[in-house]
Amino acid sequence: MSLSLKQVSTHNSDKSCWVIIKDSVYDVTEFLSEHPGGSKIILKYAGKDATAAYEPIHPPDALEKNLPPQKHLGKLDSVSLDQLELARGHRKKTEDELRIEREQAAKPPINRILNLKQMEDVARKVLSYKALAYYSSAADDEISNLENARAFSRFFFRPRVLRPLSNCDPSTTILGFKSKIPVFVSGAALAKLGHPDGEANITIGAGKTGIIQMVSSNASLSFEQVAASRISPSQPLFFQLYKKKDNKAAEQRIRDVEALGYKAIWLTVDAPVPGNRERDVIAGWEIDDIERLAQGDKAKADQPRKKSDMEEVEETIDTTGTAGALIANDDINMTWTETIPWIRSITRLPIVLKGVQCVEDAVLAAEAGVDGILLSNHGGRQLDFSPPPLEVLYQIRKERPDVFNKMEVYIDGGVRRGTDVVKAVCLGAKAVGLGRPFLYAQSAYGAAGVVKIVRILEREIVTAMQLIGARRVSDLVPEMVQRVDWEPIQAKL
Amino acid sequence: MSLSLKQVSTHNSDKSCWVIIKDSVYDVTEFLSEHPGGSKIILKYAGKDATAAYEPIHPPDALEKNLPPQKHLGKLDSVSLDQLELARGHRKKTEDELRIEREQAAKPPINRILNLKQMEDVARKVLSYKALAYYSSAADDEISNLENARAFSRFFFRPRVLRPLSNCDPSTTILGFKSKIPVFVSGAALAKLGHPDGEANITIGAGKTGIIQMVSSNASLSFEQVAASRISPSQPLFFQLYKKKDNKAAEQRIRDVEALGYKAIWLTVDAPVPGNRERDVIAGWEIDDIERLAQGDKAKADQPRKKSDMEEVEETIDTTGTAGALIANDDINMTWTETIPWIRSITRLPIVLKGVQCVEDAVLAAEAGVDGILLSNHGGRQLDFSPPPLEVLYQIRKERPDVFNKMEVYIDGGVRRGTDVVKAVCLGAKAVGLGRPFLYAQSAYGAAGVVKIVRILEREIVTAMQLIGARRVSDLVPEMVQRVDWEPIQAKL
Amino acid sequence: MSLSLKQVSTHNSDKSCWVIIKDSVYDVTEFLSEHPGGSKIILKYAGKDATAAYEPIHPPDALEKNLPPQKHLGKLDSVSLDQLELARGHRKKTEDELRIEREQAAKPPINRILNLKQMEDVARKVLSYKALAYYSSAADDEISNLENARAFSRFFFRPRVLRPLSNCDPSTTILGFKSKIPVFVSGAALAKLGHPDGEANITIGAGKTGIIQMVSSNASLSFEQVAASRISPSQPLFFQLYKKKDNKAAEQRIRDVEALGYKAIWLTVDAPVPGNRERDVIAGWEIDDIERLAQGDKAKADQPRKKSDMEEVEETIDTTGTAGALIANDDINMTWTETIPWIRSITRLPIVLKGVQCVEDAVLAAEAGVDGILLSNHGGRQLDFSPPPLEVLYQIRKERPDVFNKMEVYIDGGVRRGTDVVKAVCLGAKAVGLGRPFLYAQSAYGAAGVVKIVRILEREIVTAMQLIGARRVSDLVPEMVQRVDWEPIQAKL
Amino acid sequence: MSLSLKQVSTHNSDKSCWVIIKDSVYDVTEFLSEHPGGSKIILKYAGKDATAAYEPIHPPDALEKNLPPQKHLGKLDSVSLDQLELARGHRKKTEDELRIEREQAAKPPINRILNLKQMEDVARKVLSYKALAYYSSAADDEISNLENARAFSRFFFRPRVLRPLSNCDPSTTILGFKSKIPVFVSGAALAKLGHPDGEANITIGAGKTGIIQMVSSNASLSFEQVAASRISPSQPLFFQLYKKKDNKAAEQRIRDVEALGYKAIWLTVDAPVPGNRERDVIAGWEIDDIERLAQGDKAKADQPRKKSDMEEVEETIDTTGTAGALIANDDINMTWTETIPWIRSITRLPIVLKGVQCVEDAVLAAEAGVDGILLSNHGGRQLDFSPPPLEVLYQIRKERPDVFNKMEVYIDGGVRRGTDVVKAVCLGAKAVGLGRPFLYAQSAYGAAGVVKIVRILEREIVTAMQLIGARRVSDLVPEMVQRVDWEPIQAKL
Repeated sequence: MSLSLKQVSTHNSDKSCWVIIKDSVYDVTEFLSEHPGGSKIILKYAGKDATAAYEPIHPPDALEKNLPPQKHLGKLDSVSLDQLELARGHRKKTEDELRIEREQAAKPPINRILNLKQMEDVARKVLSYKALAYYSSAADDEISNLENARAFSRFFFRPRVLRPLSNCDPSTTILGFKSKIPVFVSGAALAKLGHPDGEANITIGAGKTGIIQMVSSNASLSFEQVAASRISPSQPLFFQLYKKKDNKAAEQRIRDVEALGYKAIWLTVDAPVPGNRERDVIAGWEIDDIERLAQGDKAKADQPRKKSDMEEVEETIDTTGTAGALIANDDINMTWTETIPWIRSITRLPIVLKGVQCVEDAVLAAEAGVDGILLSNHGGRQLDFSPPPLEVLYQIRKERPDVFNKMEVYIDGGVRRGTDVVKAVCLGAKAVGLGRPFLYAQSAYGAAGVVKIVRILEREIVTAMQLIGARRVSDLVPEMVQRVDWEPIQAKL
Repeated sequence: MSLSLKQVSTHNSDKSCWVIIKDSVYDVTEFLSEHPGGSKIILKYAGKDATAAYEPIHPPDALEKNLPPQKHLGKLDSVSLDQLELARGHRKKTEDELRIEREQAAKPPINRILNLKQMEDVARKVLSYKALAYYSSAADDEISNLENARAFSRFFFRPRVLRPLSNCDPSTTILGFKSKIPVFVSGAALAKLGHPDGEANITIGAGKTGIIQMVSSNASLSFEQVAASRISPSQPLFFQLYKKKDNKAAEQRIRDVEALGYKAIWLTVDAPVPGNRERDVIAGWEIDDIERLAQGDKAKADQPRKKSDMEEVEETIDTTGTAGALIANDDINMTWTETIPWIRSITRLPIVLKGVQCVEDAVLAAEAGVDGILLSNHGGRQLDFSPPPLEVLYQIRKERPDVFNKMEVYIDGGVRRGTDVVKAVCLGAKAVGLGRPFLYAQSAYGAAGVVKIVRILEREIVTAMQLIGARRVSDLVPEMVQRVDWEPIQAKL
Repeated sequence: MSLSLKQVSTHNSDKSCWVIIKDSVYDVTEFLSEHPGGSKIILKYAGKDATAAYEPIHPPDALEKNLPPQKHLGKLDSVSLDQLELARGHRKKTEDELRIEREQAAKPPINRILNLKQMEDVARKVLSYKALAYYSSAADDEISNLENARAFSRFFFRPRVLRPLSNCDPSTTILGFKSKIPVFVSGAALAKLGHPDGEANITIGAGKTGIIQMVSSNASLSFEQVAASRISPSQPLFFQLYKKKDNKAAEQRIRDVEALGYKAIWLTVDAPVPGNRERDVIAGWEIDDIERLAQGDKAKADQPRKKSDMEEVEETIDTTGTAGALIANDDINMTWTETIPWIRSITRLPIVLKGVQCVEDAVLAAEAGVDGILLSNHGGRQLDFSPPPLEVLYQIRKERPDVFNKMEVYIDGGVRRGTDVVKAVCLGAKAVGLGRPFLYAQSAYGAAGVVKIVRILEREIVTAMQLIGARRVSDLVPEMVQRVDWEPIQAKL
Repeated sequence: MSLSLKQVSTHNSDKSCWVIIKDSVYDVTEFLSEHPGGSKIILKYAGKDATAAYEPIHPPDALEKNLPPQKHLGKLDSVSLDQLELARGHRKKTEDELRIEREQAAKPPINRILNLKQMEDVARKVLSYKALAYYSSAADDEISNLENARAFSRFFFRPRVLRPLSNCDPSTTILGFKSKIPVFVSGAALAKLGHPDGEANITIGAGKTGIIQMVSSNASLSFEQVAASRISPSQPLFFQLYKKKDNKAAEQRIRDVEALGYKAIWLTVDAPVPGNRERDVIAGWEIDDIERLAQGDKAKADQPRKKSDMEEVEETIDTTGTAGALIANDDINMTWTETIPWIRSITRLPIVLKGVQCVEDAVLAAEAGVDGILLSNHGGRQLDFSPPPLEVLYQIRKERPDVFNKMEVYIDGGVRRGTDVVKAVCLGAKAVGLGRPFLYAQSAYGAAGVVKIVRILEREIVTAMQLIGARRVSDLVPEMVQRVDWEPIQAKL
């Protein structure tokens, strides 16, 4: 069936809500109530073209999977499509888009990037306001987010001298898979927000540099697309599972990714409910305001408020932001005794718990027989005042060093320098995950950005290893690190 | 008797001092020396209309209670009243009033308020200079005030994962009365300074959200008015007692509030004498200066000083500010052995000591058989370098955990986030009081503001409970909190 | 003999150097080499009027004592004197003097001063550049100076409630002499730099408020003048002794002050050599530069340097500033075994050691049988990184509490609030000295300023005592103070 | 042979690369691949005059030593030389050179320099951008560099009073050689970058003030030149050895300096690989950019990039900066069991290990029988988060005080005040090294600057010794220093 813009435009309410994505028309009326991100955001595009809002945050197969075929109403007719293309082309660029174009033109040559901080600085300039808010936001006052990084500054080295150092080799294994450095990509969602190629940038970069990517359940590419982006079929990928409430759906997802060749399941245990990320919520509002003004909606904005403050305050409002939308259907009642055995019964892949945050749970994990734990507070995005993972690692080292013998232990959160990686490995981490830095790198320079920061980390790790007297990762021992009792100056170069 | 403005105007000195409040005339000559706020402030209005200065800081029954009937001289005659109304209407607005009008028009819709800090930011804009000075002021250099809040940043969580979390319920009881969240309104005086409806805003907001209000002895509404503002007769209220020197008066006040249905007596023990709140004192002076200038009194201001510095310095001056005025007649000699048994003999209501600040006194309170203690330093308004209540709570937890079994323990001071509440409850607090945040909320949006911040706290508390692995308040245990040995970054989002 | 300006002007070199002070002429040629401040400063005025430079930093009897009678050459003739008076009157005021006049006119009424910080703020405005540099300067990077004050912020109270508090009495004794509050004036030199009445302001203020002044050996008034300024003959004074190398001179000084009725000898032991006070040294240079320019000496300033850097660097230069000048003839070889018994043999007055800085020396002092020690680092003016006296007091309390039973212990340095005083007394200090605050107070408002800050301290001390549950100084015990393990926010109100 | 500019200009590629240094022409084609600083930097001057780039960073004998005689092609002909001289004279000064000329003219007289911080401030103004970047740069985020200095602020004195102090003598010995104060010049390379006389300034200054200079392997003067600069043949010099991979070359160097009269070998053990000094790398790039623009190369700079980001990122780029160039041929596989005995077998000079950073290696060094260790992290220039040497010293004092009896222990890093020196000596350091301060001093005022800072240190050391009660270096004992548990305010005078 071929449809006209005019036809579509009449289905512009929650009674009948049609939207255009690319060249196709979909009836999403019945889907409104199920949309994890709420109905309100869809209704903004009721009867209209929703492509620009849809694409950066959904994998291309999202509609296929979520909408029954009969709701795929068909294509636009060619006249309408021409009109639409024209409109899309003529659409006046927003202030933010113009700003980004200027920043893209002015960004430095990639080989002038010396460290991950500088890479982030470039990304902060070329990212859209909304994408930056989503990437950089963290829970409440963002204290855990900042403390994650500051924790590393409390750990100084105890370097050894007069040791042979040639042919220093920083390689290791993660769950048995080779990694050129003790670093992996920790699951980070919505890469397309920062770059049109999305997670594929990271896959390519990881493949070229020999490190392993953990792919988020909330990736903006489909798992097939990510798998297909690998530079060779032997490139390993890990899968970050957000378990759905519905066990069938959860099982299907595990079987799907296993079939696609993913090598391990990293079960997210620190995000049963969404964190309070105010920066993300505020960005959404501000963008709405700007759009409304841009659409000549000023009159409306200036209208006297109709409701009293008390009436307004009693309304249900959504303050969960992007985070809430992504996990709305997840399992909030996972347990040690049910969930872990259930997953073990579904798959033979190694299982890692992502988001362990205290010694007791590390011990429980070891007892539950999982293959690894990732000490993580989700980059400080979930619970403010959750402890910095490096401090948790240090507590395990002091109180229960036996844990390191029973399974692999990883950390993520706040890692920005090769010295950070080396400190964590000295204390017992098998490898160290980075999330935001990869999102920033691919936003700034695509796959090349990803390659660049791995090369930087490799150089920094090798230098640090040699300067503390280590030639192999196995030479890195707890005695090479000391926790100091003063508060060091923070980096600000 | 009907009086003219002219008649009144001749009684303009400490020999004979008449003032107009609304449409009535009072002879306050003999009351001058008894006025807790000093005679000077009344003499400013001798022979004049005192309504604007009187209303925001006195309950309407204050004159009834304090002035014998024969001093109620009668109403103004209708001509005088018309003149007065005209004058009141024509009165040129002050700079501060004009500023507030602009800020009121510009304040954000209430549902854009995401946290208590933003609510305070709005209030700081719409409050009068004087009200803000009174609300925000604290003792000396305001260090305890700031440290109260900073203390929370030293306590991080030890979150547990893989626990069932659905139907998370943050409700609790306080002295046996149900509370939807472990939060109550801690006594905070002079709400009318911030909003014409005063404490009633808080009463309504507390009623609508299911939390309990502790009403200050120094409320700017009468206890009857507050009680009458409840949304239902079953809504519980607590009474914050400032015990008068005069036992009879004190007893009468207790019997009065008991008769009005107040459910507990919270005896203030941290304010026997006024704190040194310089911000409040300075605001008073600055307002005087502005008024004097506005009244064409510049000439006077410019006159050469008549007295030497030494003569001036020997004058008695009042530097106790609003705080001193409010407690001028309070009992400075309360004791464990006399005061507690005496109150117990007067009333069967539960008794809570408000303002305990060390482990020894917590133990004494338990031995004295009171029903609870509120660990509090009066929001840092009394003694600078009094310890942050959270640290006192932590010391009791470490040194005398038996105290928590003998009575309920609460804290207030510096609580701004749901995580703050959860930390205190983990350490043993039955509930947590907030004072200034409710004053700010009602100043910004009236009762709706109060509802708003309770809803925010509820959402934050539930999120924090779930993310540390707790479904009930009883799941919150000391092991879920750790005191860190470094100084965390402070919130500044 | 009567001399003319012209006659004097020919004696303008180190061969023959005459100077005019007020209306008299002195031959100081032979004194040049003995002047503690060096010859250079005198030679600036050779053959000229030196009154303005001489007066603020010398007691009026300094010339009498130091110059033999035959060097008192006589008075100026009346024509010369008229000329001089005219010149003095017509002298163009310096920028700094004009600035001070403006600040003096603008300073607030004395009763608007609420705390010692505000008093210092006024003084910093009305003081000359040179005086402020001398008063405020401290050793090296001024870290001990700042840490003295910061130390108090690490000590919080442990307040007790429900104790009778009426008739709170903060009085105590010092060496048996009554003091209205546990505060005394610690020796601080050169008060005339800040106010023409100099130390007499402090004497009068101390007398009126019932506290005791320790008078510096380096006072800018003579000891007779200070003694004569007392408001009654019974007003006690203490004498701060800088012991001269020459035992005879030292003995004479002790006998002189004893005869004048001074009640105790406070022997300075922390200043055998001058501290490195760069702020003071720099101020001297800058003033020289300004004067040279003002005297049309720009040409000279612009002349090419004659010497190489290496020649210049080998010159002897004076970088000891005012501090060095004052103690140039003091005894650098005092010992426990010789000096203390010697003083004891000279006088029956109580002896206090001013400047003890560690536990071991406190113990030695107790064993040496002195009557008291003042824990002090000279306001941070001598050795940078000398410990804050409050920390030394705390160490003695923990390690050698027996010391407090054997003699009186005082501290000074960094005290600015009544709470500071109360903390120190809780920990065992018999009384607390303040130096700079009294210099600032008398600079700002003369004797009235001194009265003012004592009254402020008294109010603050009484409030703090009551709010921690103490009615007498003897109620202040170590258990009322706790040293916290975090770094509190610093005062900035 | 006499060559023309035109002839030289045709040898302008890596096929045939000739350069002019002063008046001579060299064929460096075959040397390109051996140049420690890489070929790229030489090719910039292929066929051209390289004098200005060559001189400040090479000893004059560098070409003699590294280039076989047949590559010394001869002198320029006189016409060419005249042309070149003219060009050199007419060369337009760069912005940076003009800025430096202005700063040189405005710098203060040397005797106005009161402390090492002020000396550094002058140097920072008169140094070229490139030189300042090299001198001031440190590893990664420069945290160890800053922490080196901050560490001193955690150590306060415990001063003793009433001790005889006259004739205070701060002299000591280092490896048996007399030193006027317990301070030496720690190896610091490339002094000619800051001043045309280079390391000779330091040699002369050290000789005049009686302290000892350790001369870097990377000095910009030859070891003969430095030795020849001594003010007398008896002035001792130490040699800082960077051991070459090639044992023969290393042995030759040791024998050379021994023959020249150097008195000890300080073997660098903390720099087997270059540190990551981003400030230095960035400065290099920025200078390149400026030069390219200045040479009308703007067009080229504006050209569209030819390569993709991914192609660029795969290029090998040099980010080791100056540090990497200097140590490119050094021995990366030194060991306790081979290297130390080997050096001992080569020379009878005392051997000191420069760069020990933990207690274990201090113990190993004592067991290896070396004569001393220098606790150092290379001024924070190698490994970020290497521990501050003062903290390492303190750990040795606490854990293994026997080490101080077995060999001499020194520290360097962050020393800026006499009090710093005295603290280190109290804790057991035989002497204290300073590096950057001497580079800054000679850059600002040549040899006179060096004399000046030694005189300042001497005055500060003597003052500190006297004010803690010490007359000899041997009176300085660990009990005179305490490590405080709070974070002191940092110097900012």
